[in-house]
Amino acid sequence: MNHIISNTDTNAYQRLTDRFARMATVEEAMAMLSWDEATVMPDGGAAARADQLATLSGVVHSMLTEPAVADDLAAVAASPPASVAAQRNLDLMHRAHRQATALPGDLVEALTRQASNCEKIWRAARSASDFAMVAKPLAELLALIREKAAALAAASGLDPYDALIDGYQPGIAAAEITPVFARYETFLHTALPAVEELQAKRPHRLPGTAPFGESAQEALCRKLAAGVGLEFSGARLDRSTHPFCGGTPTDIRITTRYDENDFAAALMGVLHETGHALYEAGLPREHARQPLGHAAGMAAHESQSLIIEMQAARSEAYLNYLGPVLAEAFGQDANAFSPVRLAARLRHVQRSFIRVEADEMTYPAHVILRYRLEAAMIAGDLAVSELPGAWNDGLHHLLAVTPPDDARGCLQDIHWYCGLFGYFPSYTLGAMAAAQLMAAARRAIPSMDASLSQGDFMPLLTWLRSNVHRHGARYGFNDLLRQATGKPLDPADFEAHLTARYLA
Amino acid sequence: MNHIISNTDTNAYQRLTDRFARMATVEEAMAMLSWDEATVMPDGGAAARADQLATLSGVVHSMLTEPAVADDLAAVAASPPASVAAQRNLDLMHRAHRQATALPGDLVEALTRQASNCEKIWRAARSASDFAMVAKPLAELLALIREKAAALAAASGLDPYDALIDGYQPGIAAAEITPVFARYETFLHTALPAVEELQAKRPHRLPGTAPFGESAQEALCRKLAAGVGLEFSGARLDRSTHPFCGGTPTDIRITTRYDENDFAAALMGVLHETGHALYEAGLPREHARQPLGHAAGMAAHESQSLIIEMQAARSEAYLNYLGPVLAEAFGQDANAFSPVRLAARLRHVQRSFIRVEADEMTYPAHVILRYRLEAAMIAGDLAVSELPGAWNDGLHHLLAVTPPDDARGCLQDIHWYCGLFGYFPSYTLGAMAAAQLMAAARRAIPSMDASLSQGDFMPLLTWLRSNVHRHGARYGFNDLLRQATGKPLDPADFEAHLTARYLA
Repeated sequence: MNHIISNTDTNAYQRLTDRFARMATVEEAMAMLSWDEATVMPDGGAAARADQLATLSGVVHSMLTEPAVADDLAAVAASPPASVAAQRNLDLMHRAHRQATALPGDLVEALTRQASNCEKIWRAARSASDFAMVAKPLAELLALIREKAAALAAASGLDPYDALIDGYQPGIAAAEITPVFARYETFLHTALPAVEELQAKRPHRLPGTAPFGESAQEALCRKLAAGVGLEFSGARLDRSTHPFCGGTPTDIRITTRYDENDFAAALMGVLHETGHALYEAGLPREHARQPLGHAAGMAAHESQSLIIEMQAARSEAYLNYLGPVLAEAFGQDANAFSPVRLAARLRHVQRSFIRVEADEMTYPAHVILRYRLEAAMIAGDLAVSELPGAWNDGLHHLLAVTPPDDARGCLQDIHWYCGLFGYFPSYTLGAMAAAQLMAAARRAIPSMDASLSQGDFMPLLTWLRSNVHRHGARYGFNDLLRQATGKPLDPADFEAHLTARYLA
Repeated sequence: MNHIISNTDTNAYQRLTDRFARMATVEEAMAMLSWDEATVMPDGGAAARADQLATLSGVVHSMLTEPAVADDLAAVAASPPASVAAQRNLDLMHRAHRQATALPGDLVEALTRQASNCEKIWRAARSASDFAMVAKPLAELLALIREKAAALAAASGLDPYDALIDGYQPGIAAAEITPVFARYETFLHTALPAVEELQAKRPHRLPGTAPFGESAQEALCRKLAAGVGLEFSGARLDRSTHPFCGGTPTDIRITTRYDENDFAAALMGVLHETGHALYEAGLPREHARQPLGHAAGMAAHESQSLIIEMQAARSEAYLNYLGPVLAEAFGQDANAFSPVRLAARLRHVQRSFIRVEADEMTYPAHVILRYRLEAAMIAGDLAVSELPGAWNDGLHHLLAVTPPDDARGCLQDIHWYCGLFGYFPSYTLGAMAAAQLMAAARRAIPSMDASLSQGDFMPLLTWLRSNVHRHGARYGFNDLLRQATGKPLDPADFEAHLTARYLA
């Protein structure tokens, strides 16, 4: 009897892994279509592409919500698989199934429609810097998002806002994030004026002389991405309006854009996306296309892009390597790319209005602002009509600057207007995790700076593969940090990093 | 009661059109992924891409073979839709369903596996020019194809070989093709030596002086494709090893390859693919993603590429326009691109071994050879082991030349080795249809040559849109020709075209 049950359950688990592999394969197709849309698709293809992505999304949703899934999950639960990996994979299947079945079909449909509608109006509102244009569609979208949060909360036992965060980064909740962000605000209150004072005393000469030719920039980006460890036999670098890392683990598509007046944006962008790419490429192949074989979450992903871009590539050691490489790439004098001049471009701290242009020290302030506002909106404590005022007050409170208009204020980011609530904290959790991981990697690799000063990322990459990438989704955010660094998220490492870099 | 039945049937038809639209949308995704694979995908993505395409193919197959489809088809049959278009659409749904359900699942799987296996071995065999290497896998594949043909024949009432032809071009059968091809053989027997004799008397100076820069060629291809009517707001031109037209009607992807020693291959290739592209772009939007909204078949499709490439673009009138355009594009003297010199490259007839390099007069001989051999193989009258001998005898009979080896003989084309039997006749049926359509268009548009000599394709394109494109799959091959030209396939127009062009 036991034997028969065991057989049945094994088959049920096998059926589930087959099904999740098919789902992941369709999602790979969607990733390629999204890359195509952002890079090469002619305008005429837009409507058909939206249909293709919606249809494939529906295919995946159907695969996940067919009654057979619940049956198989129930059958396996009776005698769970023996290996820890399979148990975790099964937990992640349960989680995916719970999330997919928690939302009524008409809510999903209304959300998709309203997100698309609101995003379209937001584009016009941002152009006109007129929040009033988009206030009503955003309020309607927020109402649906709050329904979604309530439904996910009911299914998971989490608080509504936590249930949204959990959709992007499992393993951390607002109760942990709030004090971490409050502490950072306190740190910034003292550190930022101190950095500004120090900076004012130093010469501010930018590196090199524009123009920096696009093809020279592109060749340089390829060279440095390859130097970090990206293998172009399984990757491409292309152009898009908004840089991203897409594709699949064996066919990674990173993009950037080039500005001939500023080589640094494209270069640092490519190194950032290369960090994402290396994470994808380093995920456990033996669990490919299984929930366990995916990345651990968006904050974990951001930690991998930022450990390359912010921790390693902007380190003193790497700037020493970078200078001559840049001089050669642009055919300019090596003195024009001295560490001091590179730092003037790559390590300059400045209060500003725009999140995506912010330096690593003030960036968290932008995220903290959004975190507090979206938490209040989800809780029902902040109405959409109050958002512009709350935004401007909040930014002034954090950075003592006030946006001149809503285009440079609460209209600047797409996230809320296309329904992304709960995503923002991942940026700063990722930055803090990157500092914590880098500190641990430095302890494990005493020669880190010697390697980076030769442009050699292999020691760091090997450590990341072993301590982060190969685990896939085995751990939630804090557990991933715990096993890699010996402790859960600890903002002290990020503060120590900033202090060492900007206040030494 | 009638009212209730009518309602039920209407809903069944609506469910069917919804389902076929979803299937077509997934097939669009597959078309984009295939384009990506052939043009930009890094090698590392090959295995994952094969899985993606196989999975999506399985998704479409499941959508088509779920029991609900048979139920809905039966429900609608009880009281068919009122409009002729809907009736034809329903017929095409029945046809697709019959074809999908005719083959047992294990046969489909065995075919997919053996086609992939045989194609791989064929690549090595062709490189080594060693037919023996691939004889056994081809024989095994042929056995499966014969099973498939028998199953399709049983389901459709057609003869086995006709059932295969019908899979690529509905509306014509071997009983009609055989005499048409025999007649062409007779024509060629007299015409070819006569053309050779005339040609020998003319000077043979090729146009222009190599090298023809790749970027100049590409710009030229874009300009001329746009001149023919391709709108790049809904299309792209890229590079691939084997030129093709892919994508979707609103996002067409054509490709070519460039040879700096010969501008004509890329240019004529692009005009050929532009003909395919214009057909796709001209399909009836009101039936988009329905069976009725697709092209009428592969021979019909080839007629649209060849009417642009062979009929129009190689006409005396267009060559007069082309000469100065080429001279300007390559920065060379206009005299180097005189009609006589252009004709020496673009209208030169020559007996050869290779189908894809053949001129329009000898090309049908290559197709007739393959048609007769594959018909005999499907009928069981020709064993795979006898193929090389039969090939060489057949080619000698048709063109009085003998391939020096099998690489330039029966190993040259991929078709049979990846399971395509019944496809070859479409090439020559398309060429003949192109001549027949062009003759009809010329009757309708007396100013055709005046337009072409200005590079103006609009009169021809307008006629094709109205008489071919807008019908989608409403007609089978002969019916399409009948309504556009007043008669079913008539090889006399193709002979008249060749006689006028090469023997005047």
